Amino acid sequence: MKKVILDLDTGIDDAMALAYAIADEEVELLGVVGTYGNVYTEQGVQNVLNILNMLNVKNVPVYAGEECALDKDKFDRLEVSAKIHGENGVGQVEIEKSDCQKQEQDGVSFIIDSVKKYGKDLTIVATGAMTNIAKALRDFPQMSELVGEIVIMGGALIVEGNVTPFAEANIIQDPQAAKEIFESGANVVMVGLDVTKLTVLTKDHTNQWRVNKAGEKYADMVDYYIDMHVEIDNLYGGCYMHDPLALSYVNHRDWFKTISLPMTVITQGVAVGRTIGYNSHVTESTPRVNVCIDVKADEFIKHYQSTVMKLFK
Amino acid sequence: MKKVILDLDTGIDDAMALAYAIADEEVELLGVVGTYGNVYTEQGVQNVLNILNMLNVKNVPVYAGEECALDKDKFDRLEVSAKIHGENGVGQVEIEKSDCQKQEQDGVSFIIDSVKKYGKDLTIVATGAMTNIAKALRDFPQMSELVGEIVIMGGALIVEGNVTPFAEANIIQDPQAAKEIFESGANVVMVGLDVTKLTVLTKDHTNQWRVNKAGEKYADMVDYYIDMHVEIDNLYGGCYMHDPLALSYVNHRDWFKTISLPMTVITQGVAVGRTIGYNSHVTESTPRVNVCIDVKADEFIKHYQSTVMKLFK
Repeated sequence: MKKVILDLDTGIDDAMALAYAIADEEVELLGVVGTYGNVYTEQGVQNVLNILNMLNVKNVPVYAGEECALDKDKFDRLEVSAKIHGENGVGQVEIEKSDCQKQEQDGVSFIIDSVKKYGKDLTIVATGAMTNIAKALRDFPQMSELVGEIVIMGGALIVEGNVTPFAEANIIQDPQAAKEIFESGANVVMVGLDVTKLTVLTKDHTNQWRVNKAGEKYADMVDYYIDMHVEIDNLYGGCYMHDPLALSYVNHRDWFKTISLPMTVITQGVAVGRTIGYNSHVTESTPRVNVCIDVKADEFIKHYQSTVMKLFK
Repeated sequence: MKKVILDLDTGIDDAMALAYAIADEEVELLGVVGTYGNVYTEQGVQNVLNILNMLNVKNVPVYAGEECALDKDKFDRLEVSAKIHGENGVGQVEIEKSDCQKQEQDGVSFIIDSVKKYGKDLTIVATGAMTNIAKALRDFPQMSELVGEIVIMGGALIVEGNVTPFAEANIIQDPQAAKEIFESGANVVMVGLDVTKLTVLTKDHTNQWRVNKAGEKYADMVDYYIDMHVEIDNLYGGCYMHDPLALSYVNHRDWFKTISLPMTVITQGVAVGRTIGYNSHVTESTPRVNVCIDVKADEFIKHYQSTVMKLFK
């Protein structure tokens, strides 16, 4: 059983990762940090609270993370994010407002405290802008050696980006944060478009969820997301499983083919947000990132479906 | 023993590949096609004739390939090419002019004839602009199924380019040609900056060559090239082994780690010349390229040195 913190910008596929984490008995979800990206931080936090309430989960604390990039004082949500995830971040589906509140502690200090408490037993899975983790590393640099693993959904190494030909949506929100994480020396795993676009969930799957109220809501959300994929990616009848796939790495690394590379992120110019390796002036001690370049998509989809079905019965 | 055609824009590292091919008993060099890139085609052809003469090789025919990109009517040599390889392409070293002439047959039809004659036994190693192979594929499309393997030195997948942040020097000369080769369905191997920048030859190596006249000339050439690497790549005391490494793949694929990807080349815009994979709308029948992403550099350098030393004794 792995101890996991989810750092989410919820977001439909974030919500899918959240359900996956709740349903998977091999994941001990210590807490959720809400961040910005698909949505504003406040909305992201509220969406997580509402979904946990809908799933009748009472024991997972929710924290608010940073509201914008490290070197900025404001975040403007991309128009395309509002389109893909809906104005409310959950596909315009109405989910009852939770009575629960977020924690008073902020997300960054929760991450740091958890690293201090659990060390190598802790995995952080970040599926939005990576500002919270980068800030935690700035505030507590020993974190890079102490933390078990940081799995990020983000980037594109061997394929093009999805916001620009160079940049993936999570990285472009805060390229500097991603760069600092990549170069930190922590155990970092990049689950980027290279692999997430190999995993497709269809309405055949979501239809099976429609057996209770939560399943109906989830199916409505994901069907909205699938419909957006038709428009945006010309992908008929399915959606990419970006965020759930990142979570799956925690317990199923055998599904993934990875390469270990010194990685950086371009932080300015036309290629801003590009995640790229380098092979000049590399030494034994140069930090490396495990970049996922292939995945057993069928096994993942099968596991995802059978796992979340535990919630929808 | 592998039957090989070299398609070279000679060029210092092309000359290094040529010596490697001549010296390696496991390579049967059927002929050399001269092309443009590091030099103009005419100069490239003459350099090959002169080097073969210097190495006392009489039985390797030399052909002139195309003089510019598929969709252009003129090639302008990049300033940086003249700098790295010298005005004459061989590091300003004077090599006696050969009495031998190039063949009357053009390089493209020589490639096609060789494919028809040798089929799967033929490997084409291209280390300059890829126009000749692309033109052969246009003129004789069955070539993609008939040819054994096409190994190109070019491109950059997991690292940045060397002419722009996106483009490597050989690809940028004719991105359309590279795209057509990648998408042709032929067995294509990409030996790009991803691996070539892991292989470094030093003056310690070239000093060992200085035992006969050819060895002196070669050492002078490569020392010039090494000096240029200090200026251009901030790489002290060595040079990258771009073109010889591509040739080494023919008999030593076990040194390489490859990934098989649907690959394309960006042919316009700021990223022109970028070699990039794609994972959308890929089917079983989508052509794939074997992209080299890692190499046992030490084994290659050792083999290169011991092989070319057969010429310098």
